[in-house]
Amino acid sequence: MERIPILKMGDCLLVTIQVDMHDRLAMTLQEDLTARVVETRARGVLIDISALDIVDSFIGRMLGYIAAMARVLDARTVLVGMRPSVAITLVELGLELPGVNTALNVERGMEMIRGAIAGNGRPAGNGKGNRQA
Amino acid sequence: MERIPILKMGDCLLVTIQVDMHDRLAMTLQEDLTARVVETRARGVLIDISALDIVDSFIGRMLGYIAAMARVLDARTVLVGMRPSVAITLVELGLELPGVNTALNVERGMEMIRGAIAGNGRPAGNGKGNRQA
Repeated sequence: MERIPILKMGDCLLVTIQVDMHDRLAMTLQEDLTARVVETRARGVLIDISALDIVDSFIGRMLGYIAAMARVLDARTVLVGMRPSVAITLVELGLELPGVNTALNVERGMEMIRGAIAGNGRPAGNGKGNRQA
Repeated sequence: MERIPILKMGDCLLVTIQVDMHDRLAMTLQEDLTARVVETRARGVLIDISALDIVDSFIGRMLGYIAAMARVLDARTVLVGMRPSVAITLVELGLELPGVNTALNVERGMEMIRGAIAGNGRPAGNGKGNRQA
């Protein structure tokens, strides 16, 4: 399995990360995702990490890059399904995923994206000092 | 990664199969999925196989079991994202996935499930001689 599938659901794209990420897979995901955002005119990207036991600095950086790339293509990225242990480790490691929005699950993530599109502002809980538009 | 994540979206559960299935993983998926159907009262199960290069008799049987289990729990199963090459191989191998409904992508699969719930019948294209309720 050399690619992570990207599923289109309405205005959003959904990616479920289930396998160990390595450089090439991360690059492929970034390329595929940016291409799909343009192709489908998606307004949001949901990344489900509920299968991940650990989010290290490599994955953290990759998520940050994806969020930044999506942002310049006018799509919001929301990270969903983070395990409690992952949240603890992230903060302990000082990886607070700047610029990445989070939601408890896919449904809330999708609501967040829809709210942001409707309000034409950024999703709530950004934590990067963005003002509401 | 010892589990395949199951995402809840409205009335449906979504499973993306990305890793090679083996006995234990298939068993875990069946148990998790049936538990989640009951817990969330889901009416549909979407299984995305767009990452699979091949669907052999083992996976075919597993999908059939999942569909049958979901059916007795009053949930419809729709297989989405099948690659053309997989469809060719399935037919050549004589595995025509009886009892499993298919749709081109997640959106169409979800429409199929919603249509079936609204009509209170079974999704179209079942091919198992079920009459409309």
